[in-house]
Amino acid sequence: MSPPPATVRPRPSTGRAGDAFAARFTAVRQVSQDLVRDLSDEDMVVQSMTDASPAKWHLAHTTWFFETFVLAPSMAGYALFDARYPYLFNSYYEAAGPRHPRPRRGMLTRPSVADVMAYRAYVDAAMTQLLADRPEVAEGPLADLIELGLHHEQQHQELLLTDLLHAFSENPLGPAYRAARPEPAPTATADVGWSQFEGGLKSIGDAGGGFAFDNERPRHDVLVQPFRIADRSVTNGEWIAFIEAGGYRQPEFWLSDGWATVLAEGWMAPLYWQQVDDGWQSMSLHGVRPVALDAPVCHVSYYEADAFARWAGKRLPTEAEWEVAAAGHAPTGNTLSSGALRPLPCVGNADNGPQQMFGDVWEWTASPYTAYPGFRPAAGAVGEYNGKFMCNQMVLRGGSCVTPDGHVRATYRNFFYPFQRWQFSGLRLAEDV
Amino acid sequence: MSPPPATVRPRPSTGRAGDAFAARFTAVRQVSQDLVRDLSDEDMVVQSMTDASPAKWHLAHTTWFFETFVLAPSMAGYALFDARYPYLFNSYYEAAGPRHPRPRRGMLTRPSVADVMAYRAYVDAAMTQLLADRPEVAEGPLADLIELGLHHEQQHQELLLTDLLHAFSENPLGPAYRAARPEPAPTATADVGWSQFEGGLKSIGDAGGGFAFDNERPRHDVLVQPFRIADRSVTNGEWIAFIEAGGYRQPEFWLSDGWATVLAEGWMAPLYWQQVDDGWQSMSLHGVRPVALDAPVCHVSYYEADAFARWAGKRLPTEAEWEVAAAGHAPTGNTLSSGALRPLPCVGNADNGPQQMFGDVWEWTASPYTAYPGFRPAAGAVGEYNGKFMCNQMVLRGGSCVTPDGHVRATYRNFFYPFQRWQFSGLRLAEDV
Amino acid sequence: MSPPPATVRPRPSTGRAGDAFAARFTAVRQVSQDLVRDLSDEDMVVQSMTDASPAKWHLAHTTWFFETFVLAPSMAGYALFDARYPYLFNSYYEAAGPRHPRPRRGMLTRPSVADVMAYRAYVDAAMTQLLADRPEVAEGPLADLIELGLHHEQQHQELLLTDLLHAFSENPLGPAYRAARPEPAPTATADVGWSQFEGGLKSIGDAGGGFAFDNERPRHDVLVQPFRIADRSVTNGEWIAFIEAGGYRQPEFWLSDGWATVLAEGWMAPLYWQQVDDGWQSMSLHGVRPVALDAPVCHVSYYEADAFARWAGKRLPTEAEWEVAAAGHAPTGNTLSSGALRPLPCVGNADNGPQQMFGDVWEWTASPYTAYPGFRPAAGAVGEYNGKFMCNQMVLRGGSCVTPDGHVRATYRNFFYPFQRWQFSGLRLAEDV
Amino acid sequence: MSPPPATVRPRPSTGRAGDAFAARFTAVRQVSQDLVRDLSDEDMVVQSMTDASPAKWHLAHTTWFFETFVLAPSMAGYALFDARYPYLFNSYYEAAGPRHPRPRRGMLTRPSVADVMAYRAYVDAAMTQLLADRPEVAEGPLADLIELGLHHEQQHQELLLTDLLHAFSENPLGPAYRAARPEPAPTATADVGWSQFEGGLKSIGDAGGGFAFDNERPRHDVLVQPFRIADRSVTNGEWIAFIEAGGYRQPEFWLSDGWATVLAEGWMAPLYWQQVDDGWQSMSLHGVRPVALDAPVCHVSYYEADAFARWAGKRLPTEAEWEVAAAGHAPTGNTLSSGALRPLPCVGNADNGPQQMFGDVWEWTASPYTAYPGFRPAAGAVGEYNGKFMCNQMVLRGGSCVTPDGHVRATYRNFFYPFQRWQFSGLRLAEDV
Repeated sequence: MSPPPATVRPRPSTGRAGDAFAARFTAVRQVSQDLVRDLSDEDMVVQSMTDASPAKWHLAHTTWFFETFVLAPSMAGYALFDARYPYLFNSYYEAAGPRHPRPRRGMLTRPSVADVMAYRAYVDAAMTQLLADRPEVAEGPLADLIELGLHHEQQHQELLLTDLLHAFSENPLGPAYRAARPEPAPTATADVGWSQFEGGLKSIGDAGGGFAFDNERPRHDVLVQPFRIADRSVTNGEWIAFIEAGGYRQPEFWLSDGWATVLAEGWMAPLYWQQVDDGWQSMSLHGVRPVALDAPVCHVSYYEADAFARWAGKRLPTEAEWEVAAAGHAPTGNTLSSGALRPLPCVGNADNGPQQMFGDVWEWTASPYTAYPGFRPAAGAVGEYNGKFMCNQMVLRGGSCVTPDGHVRATYRNFFYPFQRWQFSGLRLAEDV
Repeated sequence: MSPPPATVRPRPSTGRAGDAFAARFTAVRQVSQDLVRDLSDEDMVVQSMTDASPAKWHLAHTTWFFETFVLAPSMAGYALFDARYPYLFNSYYEAAGPRHPRPRRGMLTRPSVADVMAYRAYVDAAMTQLLADRPEVAEGPLADLIELGLHHEQQHQELLLTDLLHAFSENPLGPAYRAARPEPAPTATADVGWSQFEGGLKSIGDAGGGFAFDNERPRHDVLVQPFRIADRSVTNGEWIAFIEAGGYRQPEFWLSDGWATVLAEGWMAPLYWQQVDDGWQSMSLHGVRPVALDAPVCHVSYYEADAFARWAGKRLPTEAEWEVAAAGHAPTGNTLSSGALRPLPCVGNADNGPQQMFGDVWEWTASPYTAYPGFRPAAGAVGEYNGKFMCNQMVLRGGSCVTPDGHVRATYRNFFYPFQRWQFSGLRLAEDV
Repeated sequence: MSPPPATVRPRPSTGRAGDAFAARFTAVRQVSQDLVRDLSDEDMVVQSMTDASPAKWHLAHTTWFFETFVLAPSMAGYALFDARYPYLFNSYYEAAGPRHPRPRRGMLTRPSVADVMAYRAYVDAAMTQLLADRPEVAEGPLADLIELGLHHEQQHQELLLTDLLHAFSENPLGPAYRAARPEPAPTATADVGWSQFEGGLKSIGDAGGGFAFDNERPRHDVLVQPFRIADRSVTNGEWIAFIEAGGYRQPEFWLSDGWATVLAEGWMAPLYWQQVDDGWQSMSLHGVRPVALDAPVCHVSYYEADAFARWAGKRLPTEAEWEVAAAGHAPTGNTLSSGALRPLPCVGNADNGPQQMFGDVWEWTASPYTAYPGFRPAAGAVGEYNGKFMCNQMVLRGGSCVTPDGHVRATYRNFFYPFQRWQFSGLRLAEDV
Repeated sequence: MSPPPATVRPRPSTGRAGDAFAARFTAVRQVSQDLVRDLSDEDMVVQSMTDASPAKWHLAHTTWFFETFVLAPSMAGYALFDARYPYLFNSYYEAAGPRHPRPRRGMLTRPSVADVMAYRAYVDAAMTQLLADRPEVAEGPLADLIELGLHHEQQHQELLLTDLLHAFSENPLGPAYRAARPEPAPTATADVGWSQFEGGLKSIGDAGGGFAFDNERPRHDVLVQPFRIADRSVTNGEWIAFIEAGGYRQPEFWLSDGWATVLAEGWMAPLYWQQVDDGWQSMSLHGVRPVALDAPVCHVSYYEADAFARWAGKRLPTEAEWEVAAAGHAPTGNTLSSGALRPLPCVGNADNGPQQMFGDVWEWTASPYTAYPGFRPAAGAVGEYNGKFMCNQMVLRGGSCVTPDGHVRATYRNFFYPFQRWQFSGLRLAEDV
């Protein structure tokens, strides 16, 4: 995603101590550096397409965020690490000044990885100092900005791995980011179960009480019709049935724009898949590996997800339906800390209703990404463009196997263009009652 | 628009006589031919861009519709006028077979205009014969298909003029389609008034009782928040204020995709506008003429409409809000039969609530074009793709100065891509209460 | 071709009478109009690609030439037919002012064909008047400009048919420009014979005594090695052997840029060819017809010609070699007046040396189009750009079946980009001794 | 250039000892590694455009050449360093098998720089072993292949620096490859002098006696007209005069394709130049520095060189003229070993005829790159494509400030497309007598 910007909003005093806040800051920042532990400097500089960014750039950009929005305005006497970095590491904040063109981020062999790591250390030290010197920060409006910066960093942690997979997929050697752990024994995928929900007026969106991006607000009522939703994500095995049934060759299943894309791009399977003699392989963070039939399908576009649903005689859920179905579920699952780095088969008990709502794969919904009624962008640069991505994109829900723990929640709205596939994106079916 | 396909649905017996139906058929078909009365064969063959079609093609394609979906399957012994025409004049119906590529429609110097007129006469004669021989058709399911064909023809009547304006705009001579009637004296545009509507559950969509496209169904409830809507469309004078305030140069008013389009296309004003010493001129169906300050702005994209609204501190209405505001208004206004062929200043009495809801300009709404809850595509070729355009496009409402009379209604959903400008598209503002 | 501009050069008094000159003027101008006799207005307005122009445009542009370079500067009191036409019908003469963009020539439905014919009549009348009033013109420098205008017109006569074929080829109906005359009985193509020429210093280029374009001057010596040249053009039958031998699939025969073009464009045969059950068909000015095995191959690019020669173990001749081989041959053959409108089998007696040097197909040479030593562009607008096309193009020699009679000669240098195929272009082989 | 391939030809026994040959091998190979001494791994992996390659790729590709064409076929028991490398590091040799797409060379973060250096060491050790075990190799046909490999390596040494400059130019920080040595005091550039040469039959091309690429053969006679050639290259100061005279805004000086490129690309100065308050700066291997008025202009395209010459009332020399003028000059000058890494002002004595013929900048000639009469491609993969670049490119002569010493000679033919500017390319004027 182009990470959805967030805004500062009034927040209740949490009584959290400055020390705890500082520890949390350090912990989140450390995750980013842990992610690149096994990467070479070369791995970290390349950009494989305009939508992706180099790992090094992610590390620097998230640091720029704290320097620009926290330290520079709020820490007395703070000196920029390097006056040229804001130009290099601003992403899209027009109010924060001009910036290096996105498609050329991969040209930045300088500053080096070592320079960027020094930049991180410098900013982290300043942030730690700020939190130590002014413990009251942990309770005030600045804490909201820092909190926002940490969630922003988590978004880029996911993107870093997502973009790295794309870059590695361009390498004929098919490098592995990390060695795979022993594969669980394949399970026979049970037929999917369905959970039914009543219709009526439902409240969706952020109810307060914790961090949320501005696009999750305001909480509001929507009228939902009765619906059923699948108890798990669509699997690779089911997707292969779609392929074998000619799904990629029959226009009647496809949106008009989707079919044009299929023809123009020559799509015949999800991104990263390749057919081999005895089946399908897929490039992954563990290198090229056989496609696991019982695991959720991943790296499909909205167009493909929609066509699959049509072929299956179902539809995608709306984001409101998804949120209704997810309410009450703990936002946990196969996320980054599991170490799996790939979607895993659903092992939940289908008697308990929808499983696998969080983690594994982001799930495309049928909902275009638009403003909630009464949505208001916040003031200032961080809020400048709160709504500027609300066109041409579709909402995804639930997080993936590379989403940092604690980052996602039932009201979380991710969004991508319907043709994009490099995210860890899959789908779950729904139907009318 | 790529005219939204429609489907056959059960319809009540209207008791209308075959004669009246045949007369209506003839009348609608005649309008198409009246539209090209003053055009040369050369004017009718060219295609100025992929989105547009030659006038001759519109005349043939609408005829192909009746031949393919009515005569061929339902008239005993009907012989195709020319077996090669279905390939040439199918638009996008995959189930109706392969077709000439859309971007090459302008290459068809043969069949000639005269051939196409003969095609029309042949098909019209057969249709008239069918209706005469089988008056019961006017009451049965075939009548729905014919009715659909007539609404389809009306859509292409609007497109024919819309596309012709684009083609003429490419000619440095700036030809006039027709001479302008005397211009009404310019009026001082009154400040816009606002009508307020209560929130609550509102029913929108086709309630039956007349023709509607399938995308208007099913009628269903939506939850609407209280809102205010402007009593008239945004005018050229107001748009010039936006231009002069730097609206086209300030990214903070624009959607991200919109701003990218502004930069890539060099947009600085609506399509067809050019700045001259003492103001603005615009290409129109009357040739190049001064921009009338009190008339509705036209030929703006969704991106521009959205940016204007943001600049004005307002927003666009949702399609539900628009429909709520339009309910109870007769679907009449400055449409094709007025002969104006351009948007005219609003002359209504603002005390009576929203004016100018129908005719003048299609109004961009804030709503992406999606399926209504429970939407079901119909069976068969005409319904094959009912939902296939429901992605990446935005809904427009209300009809324009080139919409045939009787074609539009409060539930009518038009849709175009947010970057498109060659339609007679404008906007009306709204705001939260 | 973008017709090679020519310049005025000192010329001997020819003693030709003004009457004869005027008659010649009228005759050449009439040919253009004869060519479009059977075309509809629709046929004459379309432009099928940027390289091609509408028939109407050719008729107007050649007229603009006389108006701009002869009448306007040299006829007292001459009034432009329409002050807007110079903008519309200038091709590429920068000094003659701005002009309508070439890719949009097909948008000019106005002025109409009738308007353009009136333009022609107006200019022709003025020219006739000029020649009658001032018979001395036929002897002076103005005669050179008029002569240039007539050769320019002849170039556009060939282009008109060449472009029309391309436009008709875009029509699935495959219209015929004219009905074919009865086909000669196919002959068994004799094995090609070879004529050998001695090496040494040879003079090439215009020797004076008649009209020539400036790019044919100055006559100069070149050192030529002994060579052999084929007695006829390569035939369709020989080309099919190349296809069947896998010529279009083997990179070793191709220039690097040529191979990239083959892959990018999917070339598998000459332009206009399509494979059918029992062989090959080709679109032609007579519509779609079987490929005649014994006729010269046509509509091949330089890349293809070069690859064929390499595959055949031969090479293309240089333009100097070609000119040496053509010296002494009358510049006659299957040109426009034969009425064949297609290349015909060679019927000459191979004992008499190279046949078919003129007419049938333009023959690609191995020579890039460059300036002859000492080449000097002339002054003024007609000569402004004499050398501006001397880059990236290759020389073709000999004229084609649509070249007007009397237009071509042994020193004539035509030139096109190596990827272009819509000309009537073929090849003749050569080899070192 | 895409380095012109060369072929093996019969060569006289040189009597050179295997030891000397081995030493030369080692020395040339070492230069490549010296060039990257100060680069980071990140600097070595990026690819800034399709025409350029990563430094790492150059190091590996030149190694692949020896492995593929020398060791694999000729060293008993040789084992490939890595069986996947031939796919990665083949450039364009179709006969040597499929290969990684050129535009994606910058994606190869693996194999790492360290891996590539190990590859070099492995191949160098094998080569050294081969030369030690079989000293007779230094006299036989294999020596020709090795010699070719060394010249090939030198070409890539120049390209490595050329491509690196382009990559660094994409970095807003403007990194310096190496620190500049103290600048010589600027000299007043003397008016250019002219050397006159007689016309007549001249022999050009490789006369044997040393290494030459196949495109330099066969030596042959050409007829040259008397000409004058400038005694030095065109300088930056002279180029600024061209800019200030509006050279980039006046179509009359430009080839048609050149003018189209100027408009499409927005060219207003040589590549890497930027205007600052008090003059011009240019990106260079020393970072961004003021443009030295008395140094040769560099990084101009053929189109620009040709336009400058036209503006100056001169022309570019043909390659034959250039070679005649260079005959008898030692092929030395400001080449790689000078350490300047930039073109330097001409300090020669103009009384001695043309100066600066070698080194400083490659000089565009007026000659398209074509085969010499009687040119024959050699057999086998190294010779497979000897002529495949002989289309659409122009010949440059003389070498540049980054050409390795000993690499260039009077008969050496470099070639690039007329629009390319990233080479160290400049020009020298000529004129007819």
